[in-house]
Amino acid sequence: MPEAELIDHAGLDSAVYLRIYLLGLKIFVPIFVLTWAILIPVNWTNNTLEHSTETYSEVDKLSISNIPHKSPRFWAHVAMAYVVTIWTCFMLKKEYETIANMRFYFLQSEKHRPDQFTVLVKNVPPDAHESVSEMVQLFFLVNHHDNYLTHQVVCNANKLAKLVKTKRKKQNWLDYYHIKYSKNPSKRPMMKTGFHGLWGAKVDAIEHHEAEIEKLTNQIAEERTNVMNNPKAIVPAAFVSFKTRLGAAVCAQTQQVRNPTLWLTEWAPEPRDVYWKNLAIPHVSLTIRKVTMGVAFFFLTFFFMIPITFVQSLANIEGIEKAAPFLKPIIHIKPIKSFIQGFLPGIALKIFLILLPKLLMAMSKFEGFMSKSRLERRSASRYYLFNFVNVFLGSIIAGAAFEQLNTFLNQSANRIPEIIGIAIPMKATFFITYIMVDGWSGTAGEILRLKQLIIYHLKNIFLVKTERDREKAMNPGTIGFNTGEPQIQFYFLIGLVYAVVTPLLIPFILIFFGLAFVVFRHQIINVYNPKYESRAAFWPDVHGRVITALIVSQVLLMGLLSTKHAAATTPVLLALPVLTIGFHIYCKGRFEPAFTRYPLQEAMNKDTLDRVREPNLNMNLKGYLENAYIHPVFKDDDFDDEDALHLDHGAPVVPTKRQSRQNTPTRSRTSNGSAPSLPEIVEEKHKP
Amino acid sequence: MPEAELIDHAGLDSAVYLRIYLLGLKIFVPIFVLTWAILIPVNWTNNTLEHSTETYSEVDKLSISNIPHKSPRFWAHVAMAYVVTIWTCFMLKKEYETIANMRFYFLQSEKHRPDQFTVLVKNVPPDAHESVSEMVQLFFLVNHHDNYLTHQVVCNANKLAKLVKTKRKKQNWLDYYHIKYSKNPSKRPMMKTGFHGLWGAKVDAIEHHEAEIEKLTNQIAEERTNVMNNPKAIVPAAFVSFKTRLGAAVCAQTQQVRNPTLWLTEWAPEPRDVYWKNLAIPHVSLTIRKVTMGVAFFFLTFFFMIPITFVQSLANIEGIEKAAPFLKPIIHIKPIKSFIQGFLPGIALKIFLILLPKLLMAMSKFEGFMSKSRLERRSASRYYLFNFVNVFLGSIIAGAAFEQLNTFLNQSANRIPEIIGIAIPMKATFFITYIMVDGWSGTAGEILRLKQLIIYHLKNIFLVKTERDREKAMNPGTIGFNTGEPQIQFYFLIGLVYAVVTPLLIPFILIFFGLAFVVFRHQIINVYNPKYESRAAFWPDVHGRVITALIVSQVLLMGLLSTKHAAATTPVLLALPVLTIGFHIYCKGRFEPAFTRYPLQEAMNKDTLDRVREPNLNMNLKGYLENAYIHPVFKDDDFDDEDALHLDHGAPVVPTKRQSRQNTPTRSRTSNGSAPSLPEIVEEKHKP
Repeated sequence: MPEAELIDHAGLDSAVYLRIYLLGLKIFVPIFVLTWAILIPVNWTNNTLEHSTETYSEVDKLSISNIPHKSPRFWAHVAMAYVVTIWTCFMLKKEYETIANMRFYFLQSEKHRPDQFTVLVKNVPPDAHESVSEMVQLFFLVNHHDNYLTHQVVCNANKLAKLVKTKRKKQNWLDYYHIKYSKNPSKRPMMKTGFHGLWGAKVDAIEHHEAEIEKLTNQIAEERTNVMNNPKAIVPAAFVSFKTRLGAAVCAQTQQVRNPTLWLTEWAPEPRDVYWKNLAIPHVSLTIRKVTMGVAFFFLTFFFMIPITFVQSLANIEGIEKAAPFLKPIIHIKPIKSFIQGFLPGIALKIFLILLPKLLMAMSKFEGFMSKSRLERRSASRYYLFNFVNVFLGSIIAGAAFEQLNTFLNQSANRIPEIIGIAIPMKATFFITYIMVDGWSGTAGEILRLKQLIIYHLKNIFLVKTERDREKAMNPGTIGFNTGEPQIQFYFLIGLVYAVVTPLLIPFILIFFGLAFVVFRHQIINVYNPKYESRAAFWPDVHGRVITALIVSQVLLMGLLSTKHAAATTPVLLALPVLTIGFHIYCKGRFEPAFTRYPLQEAMNKDTLDRVREPNLNMNLKGYLENAYIHPVFKDDDFDDEDALHLDHGAPVVPTKRQSRQNTPTRSRTSNGSAPSLPEIVEEKHKP
Repeated sequence: MPEAELIDHAGLDSAVYLRIYLLGLKIFVPIFVLTWAILIPVNWTNNTLEHSTETYSEVDKLSISNIPHKSPRFWAHVAMAYVVTIWTCFMLKKEYETIANMRFYFLQSEKHRPDQFTVLVKNVPPDAHESVSEMVQLFFLVNHHDNYLTHQVVCNANKLAKLVKTKRKKQNWLDYYHIKYSKNPSKRPMMKTGFHGLWGAKVDAIEHHEAEIEKLTNQIAEERTNVMNNPKAIVPAAFVSFKTRLGAAVCAQTQQVRNPTLWLTEWAPEPRDVYWKNLAIPHVSLTIRKVTMGVAFFFLTFFFMIPITFVQSLANIEGIEKAAPFLKPIIHIKPIKSFIQGFLPGIALKIFLILLPKLLMAMSKFEGFMSKSRLERRSASRYYLFNFVNVFLGSIIAGAAFEQLNTFLNQSANRIPEIIGIAIPMKATFFITYIMVDGWSGTAGEILRLKQLIIYHLKNIFLVKTERDREKAMNPGTIGFNTGEPQIQFYFLIGLVYAVVTPLLIPFILIFFGLAFVVFRHQIINVYNPKYESRAAFWPDVHGRVITALIVSQVLLMGLLSTKHAAATTPVLLALPVLTIGFHIYCKGRFEPAFTRYPLQEAMNKDTLDRVREPNLNMNLKGYLENAYIHPVFKDDDFDDEDALHLDHGAPVVPTKRQSRQNTPTRSRTSNGSAPSLPEIVEEKHKP
């Protein structure tokens, strides 16, 4: 499947996501060839390690450790560091350029989509005499009178959405009991009313649920009228639509009033991408939330080991004996004892690490981002930072992160890279194992979807009650940018750090990138189901993290070489991070605006083309835009879970051929049928 | 004179400049009262210094040095640090708000000014088939067709301006010789053709100059046609004017094309403020220039002492004897010897410090800023940094800056504030002397304008040849933002650092601010002649530097207290810089856009008002804007020096009652005569 078709099929996000793996290959293949051709012989033809008293492995003989102090051979490593930097930057720039152009091309080739005409206006100032809707209309009629078309106010429908969700659950239970009853008509199904059906009075399940649903339906109707009519349920924000893309682009990029914290305008996310819950967060609290989460993340990163160590100290034989002496006879039974001793200490950490992405996502949600793509991007960058501190630094300098923090605060600034630099070559074998265990087997597991298979079957046994439940359990999910991308970035980091120090590691990285590319390409084409389309808005983050990895590698090499008494190389190496930062600033200025702004010329071109192609567009536009950004809960009650809540109702704007399984076929009118229709294949594949 | 009248008379820039002194008073008067009421008694009622073996002065007895280690009294200082921070931030916020509002009010009350309708477009992409002018017209007709009015391309007229300047000089000499000849008709004035008339063939001066002027006139005419017709003389930049302020505001705030480095738009500086020379600098070289100057400034700040020490080592008796043995008999004459010994070593440093602002200004010009206000702002911030490193840190930790740099690099990060903190209280007397010598006497000298008087008389004796020369020599100049503001900021820094440590110093600061306010108010009303009006665009810089001073003071207090074994106070103090940075970020977001952007609502309001008040404005607007941004050299040849070159031709837009002395009276048509006309008074005052 060529790239154009892939974009058509799975969206730009997925296609660009695959390019991260390709970028890895493009960067590391030439580095692999060069370092093996040059550095391996340079390192090998020494005998420092043989003459030293330290123990060493064959891997070390091929690494920079094998070169004696003050050797002029270090210049080869310095030169290679330059080559690595220049090549990486060159590839990064080319890729950034390509992806910026892909994004523009995608924007130009898309059909009308509401987000192209719409601006999200936040922090509309309160007014005693006028409603938010009137304020918005008046303001835009006055200040954008040529282009203003319509607007939709945002309601705080979180409570309503919750009620609808509860009703759906009850409905599901009702269906389940109906099935149960039809299978065994002799016995009315009974249930307990207490917590999760564990205790309480026994009642007839079908009657109970029918009554509950009845009650909820009334509550929903009430809440719905309340939300619609109560001015207090209207959030001071609105989606304002314009007649032209130009009008929207102008509004999104300009300051509206004197006070730059009022009437904030930004390019609206596409309807599927809106995270409705957060639209109701008052704007003033956003800064506080951001700071709180920043501090919380700092403590999470550096001090998460403290509670885990505490749990671990409890979770051993003596701890349990002390805390609960009555368990003593049980835990001294042989198999239980060995289970506790062997498994329990690690399990707290393991559980924490499994929950971490969810925790980070919850933190991002608390921070108040208004689109799912932003949520995932923020979670991804935090996950990367966490991995950097706790996996990368944590593996190199043994010791918990808060101990490192203490060491670093009490060390002079230029000792820090040295401390880490010395440890780097010694850890090469550890990271090779890490790549094989985490990278290779993880990727192989992905294609088998073992985890999903197990979870699916577990769900099937314990949770699935009706057909709808089975469908939900079968949802193949998405790429998972918030966990997947930081993982890739971690391999970029290891690869760049070890490229010069221990070139032996590079092929392991290459195999990872190659394998992952093939696997994820397959998964994207056949399995995943994208939740939204952000038009590759994540690329600046990807680029920035590779640059970070590059700078880290340069600083660590500098630290390492300064301990090798190769002082002459330091000033030469010092130029590298400076140049890299310069390169980053250049790229930021040159390419980043492509991912945040809609240039007027592009908007104008597309408007003009539209006018020529569809002269009566403007008449239809209002009807099309009027309800594009309505809270999904108002469209109909018939939605399942949170995902469906946002996925279903973006239907008129679905840009890809892939249809959500929960979508009705009538909604695929935007497909133009040029590619083989894959949803059926997927449907087939996933039938249990 | 109330403030409104002052703005009317001298412009917003000057009025806001005065408010910096007022801000100083507002911040330090309550601090003075509080610290003297609380900290002085707290410090005085100890006898640590009396019991110690160190020498101490009475000033030290009133300072924090007099408090014994681990004393709970330090909490008074910590509390006071909080009070100082909160009060300073409160005043800063109030002031920022006031000035942002003043700026908006000024913008709303101004008459039409070309910069409100105009956008400076930079980096117009080259095209093989079309000229820059055609490109600009086409682009804006297509993408801003509703609002585009006219445009003026920018010519590289630097050579022409130079020729015109030379001609003016020769003309002046010719006038001089004419006067000389008319006074003594018996003798034709003669001159030598060589360098500055020092050697070469003797010729008749009048004839020679007439011939030269003739030649130059031809050259100018030739160059003028060249610039007008040669497409290569057209710089890829243009001033694009719009029909409405809204159109200009939209264009200035949006990205025009895909490539964010092409068709760069920004709010045009007012015509007087344009620094024409730099418009011809190719856009690509700007980054390189910026980096070069950044590096150059770093070396200038940290290593300027090296060449000066070298000069000083030469400029002593032995050095001169060695370098030029033939001078030996002369330099051993008693008065010459003592002059050399006493004066010469310091003179290199003195000359350097006098030339420093000019050097920094030249660096800013090299960096390529396009308006004089930006040039002055950049010079000011560099001058402040230089003073901070070399005067403030340099006085506290004796030793040249590059030695400090070395110390800091080899120290752990949290030792640095301690090193400086310990030294702070000891240097209080030095800074008191500094305030008196530099601040008080400098301000007193300013009102007497002694320096200017001396320079004027020196010029009168040596340089003035004609009436025009005398006028030039009499130019009272401007406030000198690039040197004046960093000086004020230095007193903010000292004041904030010593507020808690040695409160005795505060009244000296107060006297400086009071004195300077009175003096500069007088000078602004009666003497200075503003070159341009940037509408207080410098306030974000002023605000930022006070914040910097605040943070420096907090960090140093933390360092000082940690050496006093008052470890319990450190975490409490640690919150201060964090809070201050938070406050700064808040202010930046809340107020800074007021100084860089023109909100659409404001532009729209003003447009609407205009349309009501002057319905036929649009017809006149084109004629008014068509030539507003023409290079002054094209308007007429009749200009004097560089200042006049930019000052003269902004006449239709002069916003203040004060007229440049070089302006002809007919140009004062924008004055509306509501305030007493002061130019005459000034004129009177300066008649020799």
